[in-house]
Amino acid sequence: MKCISPNALRRLPVYLSYLKQLPDRSGNISATAIAGGLGLGDVQVRKDLAGISGEGKPKTGYNIQNLIDALETVLGYKSVTNAVIIGAGRLGTALMEYPEFKEYGLHILAAFDIDPERCSSTPGKPPVYPLSQLAVFCRDNAVKIGIITVPADQAQSVCDRLVENSIHAIWNFAPVHLHAKAGVTVQNENMAASIALLSNHLS
Amino acid sequence: MKCISPNALRRLPVYLSYLKQLPDRSGNISATAIAGGLGLGDVQVRKDLAGISGEGKPKTGYNIQNLIDALETVLGYKSVTNAVIIGAGRLGTALMEYPEFKEYGLHILAAFDIDPERCSSTPGKPPVYPLSQLAVFCRDNAVKIGIITVPADQAQSVCDRLVENSIHAIWNFAPVHLHAKAGVTVQNENMAASIALLSNHLS
Repeated sequence: MKCISPNALRRLPVYLSYLKQLPDRSGNISATAIAGGLGLGDVQVRKDLAGISGEGKPKTGYNIQNLIDALETVLGYKSVTNAVIIGAGRLGTALMEYPEFKEYGLHILAAFDIDPERCSSTPGKPPVYPLSQLAVFCRDNAVKIGIITVPADQAQSVCDRLVENSIHAIWNFAPVHLHAKAGVTVQNENMAASIALLSNHLS
Repeated sequence: MKCISPNALRRLPVYLSYLKQLPDRSGNISATAIAGGLGLGDVQVRKDLAGISGEGKPKTGYNIQNLIDALETVLGYKSVTNAVIIGAGRLGTALMEYPEFKEYGLHILAAFDIDPERCSSTPGKPPVYPLSQLAVFCRDNAVKIGIITVPADQAQSVCDRLVENSIHAIWNFAPVHLHAKAGVTVQNENMAASIALLSNHLS
């Protein structure tokens, strides 16, 4: 899986969501049809899919269900990765209850907050614990991903704390650039960039 | 501004947030220093910045404050773009109150929901109106961007409705591929892709 480029990897969920929306998933589909449906280039789609599922058969293309299975496997949706959220404000709470994460193989075990008033335990929802319990919780629960939804000025110290607790994959929603040592990956949910792309379209 | 590539445009907010975090913004900074601080390539940073601010001066580099101003202008942070949110659930509500949007020049005027119980008007917060009022509101308020935070199965019909009301920039948080006519830009906040990139780092 390491050989897939980050840009190709970003496109895979788009292929998957497109295939899952097809009214009839029983047959085959060509790379050209997928490219047309998504407004992407033919060659790119062919190359991306070759990397995960081998070549489509000439004239018949890819079996849709097999391609869905291959995409879900490569994307890790068939395995489960434990995650915690730091910052149980509005965004953190929204993400805690985002139903699609389970489908993506992401299991939110708990959230943590410095504010004792936000700490709670409601049946059917992930609990919110005091931040002081983070270290013990991460150690005991094989947490792999830390999701940062604290304000910008607290994000770096939260990031440092996650890394100290052996979390090497950080998903950062705070609008700030985070520094982390080599071997740690920080994925920025860069809302500012999305707005820039939209505004640019309007100007 | 149209000549900046989408990939370059995505990096500009990262440069901006990096520059704004510098403890001393009074002096100059070289492209090499920015590249080093962000873990990017020297040539790429130089090229990106040349597109918005001209060349840095040999040996002295860029004046930091001028570069911040140039980035903010190009990114549209110095102008204001009106937006509405469709779907006043947890994610929609979180975005309504996301304080950084204002800084990015995005002005959330109101949210809309099909559920009458979610419709409300609280001083200091954007109001939530019934979806039936969308058309009149968009026409009267020069709305430019529509933000979709409804469940996946309702996202396409909401997108169609926004486009019918002359909204040509859509920011989609629903985990689904949306179709829109030529001239409409759909920016997907692709959380699935972010998770894939993180999971890939772990595997």
